Formats: sequence, structure tokens, C-alpha cells
Amino acid sequence: MFNPAIKALNAPPVSTVLDWKASYDGRHGEMIDMSQAVPGYPAHPDMLNALANAAASADNARYGRVEGDDNLRAAYAEHLRMLYSANIEPEHTHITSGCNQAFVAAALAVAGRGESILMTRPCYFKHESSLGMLGISVGYVDCHDDNGLLPSCADISAAITPEVRAIALVSPNNPAGTIYPADLLTEILALCKAKGIWLILDETYRDFLPLEAGAPHDLFAADGWQDHLIQLYSFSKSYCMPGHRLGAVTSGTGMIFQLAKIIDNIQICAPRAPQQAITPMLAHLASWRDENRARIAARASVFSDVINQLNGWELISTGAYFGYVRHPFDGIGSRDVAQRMARDAGVLTIPGAFFGDGQEQYLRFAFANADREVIGHLGDRLGLLT
Amino acid sequence: MFNPAIKALNAPPVSTVLDWKASYDGRHGEMIDMSQAVPGYPAHPDMLNALANAAASADNARYGRVEGDDNLRAAYAEHLRMLYSANIEPEHTHITSGCNQAFVAAALAVAGRGESILMTRPCYFKHESSLGMLGISVGYVDCHDDNGLLPSCADISAAITPEVRAIALVSPNNPAGTIYPADLLTEILALCKAKGIWLILDETYRDFLPLEAGAPHDLFAADGWQDHLIQLYSFSKSYCMPGHRLGAVTSGTGMIFQLAKIIDNIQICAPRAPQQAITPMLAHLASWRDENRARIAARASVFSDVINQLNGWELISTGAYFGYVRHPFDGIGSRDVAQRMARDAGVLTIPGAFFGDGQEQYLRFAFANADREVIGHLGDRLGLLT
Repeated sequence: MFNPAIKALNAPPVSTVLDWKASYDGRHGEMIDMSQAVPGYPAHPDMLNALANAAASADNARYGRVEGDDNLRAAYAEHLRMLYSANIEPEHTHITSGCNQAFVAAALAVAGRGESILMTRPCYFKHESSLGMLGISVGYVDCHDDNGLLPSCADISAAITPEVRAIALVSPNNPAGTIYPADLLTEILALCKAKGIWLILDETYRDFLPLEAGAPHDLFAADGWQDHLIQLYSFSKSYCMPGHRLGAVTSGTGMIFQLAKIIDNIQICAPRAPQQAITPMLAHLASWRDENRARIAARASVFSDVINQLNGWELISTGAYFGYVRHPFDGIGSRDVAQRMARDAGVLTIPGAFFGDGQEQYLRFAFANADREVIGHLGDRLGLLT
Repeated sequence: MFNPAIKALNAPPVSTVLDWKASYDGRHGEMIDMSQAVPGYPAHPDMLNALANAAASADNARYGRVEGDDNLRAAYAEHLRMLYSANIEPEHTHITSGCNQAFVAAALAVAGRGESILMTRPCYFKHESSLGMLGISVGYVDCHDDNGLLPSCADISAAITPEVRAIALVSPNNPAGTIYPADLLTEILALCKAKGIWLILDETYRDFLPLEAGAPHDLFAADGWQDHLIQLYSFSKSYCMPGHRLGAVTSGTGMIFQLAKIIDNIQICAPRAPQQAITPMLAHLASWRDENRARIAARASVFSDVINQLNGWELISTGAYFGYVRHPFDGIGSRDVAQRMARDAGVLTIPGAFFGDGQEQYLRFAFANADREVIGHLGDRLGLLT
């Protein structure tokens, strides 16, 4: 009675992990939840105020333009121009109801059934399940510990078979935290152009890159980026509003035209009140974004110290929101380890198995969820496990 | 560079029609916009107030449960129990970001590659384009003037080939307004059960059925409905909040489990603030809903009178939000007629061609958009066309 492609999908992974909370009896203090990637601090009061004002308006309760409200597209294009020092126009943007929806739309726009999209492994489970859901084949490019979990351009090139329509990357990476160097991204986009495929680049966590590093990449300066780059973004993490579901795509006008047909079917338009509320906040909350960038970086630093001081645990890669960690329990599956951690130590993480084959030795810690003091207790908690 | 299934889709139909507005110079007074199905009156002040309060909350800015917030699911199940006098539990419901998303998820849940879903024709263009987008084949069951644009059970039965996984119906119908009799729906569900397929029933406009008619149907009392019925609803029309994007599915728990995997990929969760705002409104705005039901019925009545008094125009079917009308311009395509109406008479409608093959003689009027006085002028405006 069901589509076999849907039956074959796992239950929502984050829901599965959150259900493990109930197994912990609280004996060591409050649960340390480093599972779902959510900011551990609330939205700015000005943001909440803007959301309330926008939601009070009968006008904002009406349908809007499929591609997004004009003023948000203009403000977002301006924001991108400053961030990437590039010529980006409102027509290059499409607002979506969250970044996962942006990925689904991008995947559908480029790949039909029987075609394929490449992903790096460890891979973001939502990208993998979205492709499975759509009947799009997945090709994997394995990333290795000795290279900081970055893919090599040679491995990507070797994986591009005739069915491949795109490669999907996440930088800073989910789950590994790995920050892709600008040069590598330039090289990958050039490869995509040479092979006639798309680069889908999910930059949900870009506002947590080190400020001193400058622009995240130079892809928007590449000749012909409009026909080979689909860049994704989420307003959820940077503005602490995942519950309002707002994301964005940046690409060429040809791609935006195709995306609008898809979003019209899936969503008609992104929620209007959050669109109106966020518009002035892109500029208004610039320094608050930078404070949070520093705050999360400080958490990353404490987290690294904690893991590095723990016998048998190894920090494989870290950056932005995440740390990808090798656990010391050889021969025990990551799911068993994570469930035991939840029950016996009150620490919630996502098991490596959820990020693809060959990841049983690893766990993902979303350290952005917890403040430095809580992260400081992580060592004692993990030390309880034997 | 694009998925051929997406390239083959038309640009969003409503956007195309709204673009025709610019062609009218205003010579006969304000444009009468009967194109997009949107309520022509604002949301209730209590609803706007609840939306603003919910959006002010940092808690509501967080992720929620994939299937929907517990309190909304409970309130919606209670609402359904009263409306249909049936045993519906919160576990039978799934909240979505709008009813189109609900349809996309339902279609994906039942039909895989090479499988097919039946639609009645004239068909709702978003359902048709959603199936095209997903690579699901469409089979058509033609509805005829002499039967009030209702499908016959024999025609449906004849169309159920082995590839067919579901039949999708809309009642009250979009575009025709036709209200499906409860007995016919019972018969169709029994047929679906006998053939081992699903009935996807979109009831976006159910709150505009005549109150005295009682429950819209008895399907939730049918034995085994959980494994054969997927019922869809939109909060947009009844609460005048399409811009907030909120819809719902009701089905068996097995289907809800599959839908959650799909919605987790497409949306993660429906927007939280509207979920929280609407929860108490289902009961609180019951009499307001009935006032609007009467208000739209009055518009329907004026609309019928206007069309019936016009030489050469014929009202084929009407109900809830829509009238489906035969235009008098033989041999001229519906798109040309609609564009001419927009430019020369300042009346915006959706051409029949957008509702499938064989519909060139028709136009859809969404009379809910305009008040009775405006509808009263429609006759003069249409009389200008020659």
C-alpha cells in the first residue's frame, strides 16, 4: 500500500534520538543534549518583536509571491553582495520554507528518476533520505580522517558517471564540522562546469565561520556560476528561529525559474510573517550574529579541549556547530554506544551510523546546543562509560 | 541541465494570471479579481492577535515535532470527531505547511516510480503539476456537464489499471465547485478498498458547505478507512491565513508514519507559531466560520444570478468557492478569452485550459474573493466583451 522508496526510509533520525531521552533517570544531573543542531540561546528580542508585529498584520496573512517577498529578496541579495563581494541580484534568490525544502527543490530541479546526485560521506542524513524519497540515486565520495574529512577532487571526478547530475556539499560540514577551503570549492565548481553538472552547496552554518577568514568562498565570482552553482542557506541557526521555517536558494535566473515551479507545488510561498520580520534584521542584527559566532567558537574550543583530554576518544574534525568524534568502544555499533551514552551518562548525540555506511566508529556532537559550563561537564559524563 | 519532468511543467499558473492585471487600464473601475482562491475578507482580530502572541514566543521559534504540535493534533482530532461524528484520534493526524504540501506528501507516500494516480478532469492544476514533478503518471477520469461534473463510479473503476495506486478527488471541487454527495464518496471508497488503492480526498473547502447538509461524508465510519483514505485539509481558507501555510492530513497510523518521513525531509515541521495560534481558534471561531459560510453562500447566489442572466454564458457547476462557467466565444481558446477579459473588462479568472485537456470552453471564477456588490457589477463587465 506504500511507495517502496518511502517504506525503505528510516523513521526521522532526530525524533528517534530524542526518544532516547526517556531512558535517562537524571542521576548525573540534567541531560546534556548535543543531538539536534539548534542554537542553545533564544532569538534576539528585536527579532521576536518583529515576528510578533509581522504576524499581527492581515496583509502578511495573505499569499505572497512564490519566489519570496520582493523586499526580502532585495535585502538578502544585498546581504550576499557584501558577504561574498559578488554581483548578486534579487532575481538570483528564491526564499523557501527552510533549507531542507531548498535542498529537495534543488535536487528535483536537476535530477529525474534514474539520475544520480553525489554526496560526501559521512553525509547529512536528510540529504540522503530526501534523494531516496525522490527516487534519485546517490553516489558517495568517501572522506577520510587523514584529510580532515575533506573530499579530494580526484575522488569526486572519478565518481562522476554519466547519470550524475550534481554533487551536494555542506560547508561548514554537517556532521563533521569541516570547513571547506575556498580553493577546494573553486576547484570543485570548475570540475562541475567541465563535466556539465551542478554543485549544490549547503551553507546553513556559514554565519559561524571565523570572521577573520573573510568570505566563505569565491564561487560567485567564477565565470558561469549561474549555470552550475545552487547555493543553499537557512535563517534558522543564525537567527534562532527554526520553528518559523525560512531558507533561501541562490542560483542563476534559469534555475530560479525552475525552482519556482517546484516550490509552487510544495509550498506555494514561504511563510510571509517571518519573511517580513527577517528583512530588516539581516542588517540590524549583524553585530549580534558576530557575537554568536564568537560564542559558538568559544564552545568549540572548550569542546575540543574536553575531547582531547579524554582517553580513547578522538576529535576527527570540528567547526561551526559540530564535532565529529571517534568513540573508544571498538566493535560496538555507534547506535548502541549513543543509546548507552544517553541512558548511562545523560549525553545525547547522533550515532555515526545515521551518516552513512562505514561510520560506526563515530558520533556527532552538536556543541552549539550547550553552553561552555555544560560542555565542561562532558568529560566527567563520558568518563562514566566503560 | 534541468530535470526534464520539471522543465516540462508550466510556470506557476496563478502567477501567470496575476501578471495579466497590468494589461487593464482601469477604464471600467477597479479590476474584479476572481482568479486565486483567497478569502476576500481579513482574518478575525482574535486570530491575528493569537498569531502575534504566538510569534512573540522564543519557545515557538524552536523546532517542533514532525507530525505537528501535540495540542494542535489533539484539538484538530476533536474538531474532526464533531464534524464527522467519527472516532478520530490525534495519531490519525499530521500537520503540514499547507494543503498542497499535504498532497505532495500523500502522493509520494503511495506512488513510486512508474506508478499512477487518477484525477478527475477538469482537475486542480496543482495536483496535476505535483504528480508531473514527482514523475508519477496521471490517469484522467473525465467529468461531464450533464452530470454536474461529478465522476461516475463506473468510469473510475474502468480507469483503475494495475499501475494505479490512488484516486485524488477534491470536494467541494476545485475548479468546478461541485459538491460530491456522501453516497458517491462511500461508493468510491468501497471501490478503492476492493481494488486495493487509496482515496486521496482534498477537503480544503469543506467549511463552505451548506450547514444544513450535515457532515460532509461518512467515510470515517467505513470499515478499514485507515488503510484506504487520505483526507486533506487547509486552514488557509477557513481562517483567512494562507500566508501562514498550515494544512493537515487525516489517515491511518500506518500512513501517518510514512508521511512523517516525507515531511521530515521537505519541511522538518510546519511553522510553529501558526500551529499554536490556531489551536484554540478551532473551537473559538466556530460561529465566525458559520458567518463566513453564509457570506460566501450569498456571494454564490449573486454569482449564479449574474451568470444565468447573461446571454451566451452558462453556469456548469458551482459550490463553496467556485463557479465553472462556459464562455460564449466558440473557437477561441480559454486563455485568449481570459486575457481579453482581463484587458478589456477588468475581470480576472483562470482559463479552463489550466484545468486539463478539453476545457477550452470554460473559465473558473473564484467568487469568494469579491463581495456581493462587486459581483453584481460582473454582468455589466462581461457584457462589454464581444
